[in-house]
Amino acid sequence: MLYALMKEVRTIVVNRSAYADNDAEADLLRDYLHDKGVFLVNVMSSPGAGKTTTLIKLINELKKKYRIGVMEADIDSNVDAISIAKETGVKSIQIQTSGMCHLDAGMTKTGLDEIDISDLDLVFLENVGNLVCPAEFDTGACLDVMILSIPEGDDKPLKYPLVFEKCDLVMINKIDTIEYFNFDFKKCEEVIKYRNKNSTIIPISALKGEGIDKVVSYFIKKIEAWRK
Amino acid sequence: MLYALMKEVRTIVVNRSAYADNDAEADLLRDYLHDKGVFLVNVMSSPGAGKTTTLIKLINELKKKYRIGVMEADIDSNVDAISIAKETGVKSIQIQTSGMCHLDAGMTKTGLDEIDISDLDLVFLENVGNLVCPAEFDTGACLDVMILSIPEGDDKPLKYPLVFEKCDLVMINKIDTIEYFNFDFKKCEEVIKYRNKNSTIIPISALKGEGIDKVVSYFIKKIEAWRK
Repeated sequence: MLYALMKEVRTIVVNRSAYADNDAEADLLRDYLHDKGVFLVNVMSSPGAGKTTTLIKLINELKKKYRIGVMEADIDSNVDAISIAKETGVKSIQIQTSGMCHLDAGMTKTGLDEIDISDLDLVFLENVGNLVCPAEFDTGACLDVMILSIPEGDDKPLKYPLVFEKCDLVMINKIDTIEYFNFDFKKCEEVIKYRNKNSTIIPISALKGEGIDKVVSYFIKKIEAWRK
Repeated sequence: MLYALMKEVRTIVVNRSAYADNDAEADLLRDYLHDKGVFLVNVMSSPGAGKTTTLIKLINELKKKYRIGVMEADIDSNVDAISIAKETGVKSIQIQTSGMCHLDAGMTKTGLDEIDISDLDLVFLENVGNLVCPAEFDTGACLDVMILSIPEGDDKPLKYPLVFEKCDLVMINKIDTIEYFNFDFKKCEEVIKYRNKNSTIIPISALKGEGIDKVVSYFIKKIEAWRK
């Protein structure tokens, strides 16, 4: 059997949204989430930057305070939703995007309806691994964050402007491997700030747990401010 | 100064192709390349998988046999075209994609016209770092190849089917770092073969030079077969 393609988490297949105006749809979704008291975080990165591993570490801390759900978006497979369910015990679903390279607000709403947010405080949306297209479509999330990983190189904020402009938080993951790669942290930080002077940069190692406490505090602050 | 945004390589900005039928356009481009005796290779990968470093190593071998040009595609910046020019001495240009996540055949043709292929045997097109969209658009290249890097994880062929189905060669890069990551080489190979049973898989370390000789032989074989 190719990996463990188990059936124990729900998988839904979504298609391109029928709404012509994604921005308007995203604003409506944010209003809806506010009414329901549910904070939605959109997590973006390249393939393999460590979104799922980071989420597992964060959720195992944040679940002490919040009721959490996770929507895992991928073109194919359901391995991430299974990992989340196994490693954290929180509600998770897999969204398969019918080949699409990103999620829009309509697709996100379909996922939220499927996971059922009536008993949740916090939902993480793990977007398709892609530094380009997901940044172009507002999902309706309350907060956009991203992960850049050390092996990808320090020049990514130069090459992929929009995602760095859009994200309030940049986690720099796999910091424990920095000695094996040619990564100039200061230079990278400088270009991230050039793209978005308000972004918060937190170096982490999702595998080793380094920096996770700082990200947890960051999220709690954002969630509590939003609730007021 | 933010990095060395030098002007010493040419940068062109391309827009979405006006052609309605990209596949037909790509076929026409392949005919044109055959007439001119120029072999075009489309190189795809995630951001930071090591396309530029790999190309530098390959070109420094292949330039002993062929006259080479390189087209570097990115949404922004020209750092890759500069690296190629500096490290290999071959003709290189930067294609900026106006925010687009991929290149189509029309954009590729614009790049070829700009670099001037009349004195070239072999052109490498380094596509935008993205495992999704570039695979959906035939660039008109004679050969599609990709790089997967160890830090991205062994589950990528599960999640990004099309690029693995489409590529004749999968280089697995950063093999020298395998002990620091949780990467099951055999499992990965199995899923790559499931996506495309004819694909050739070559583990490499572009940084250390490991496996580069095998990739060089692979390209020479492909180019010579195509020329017959």
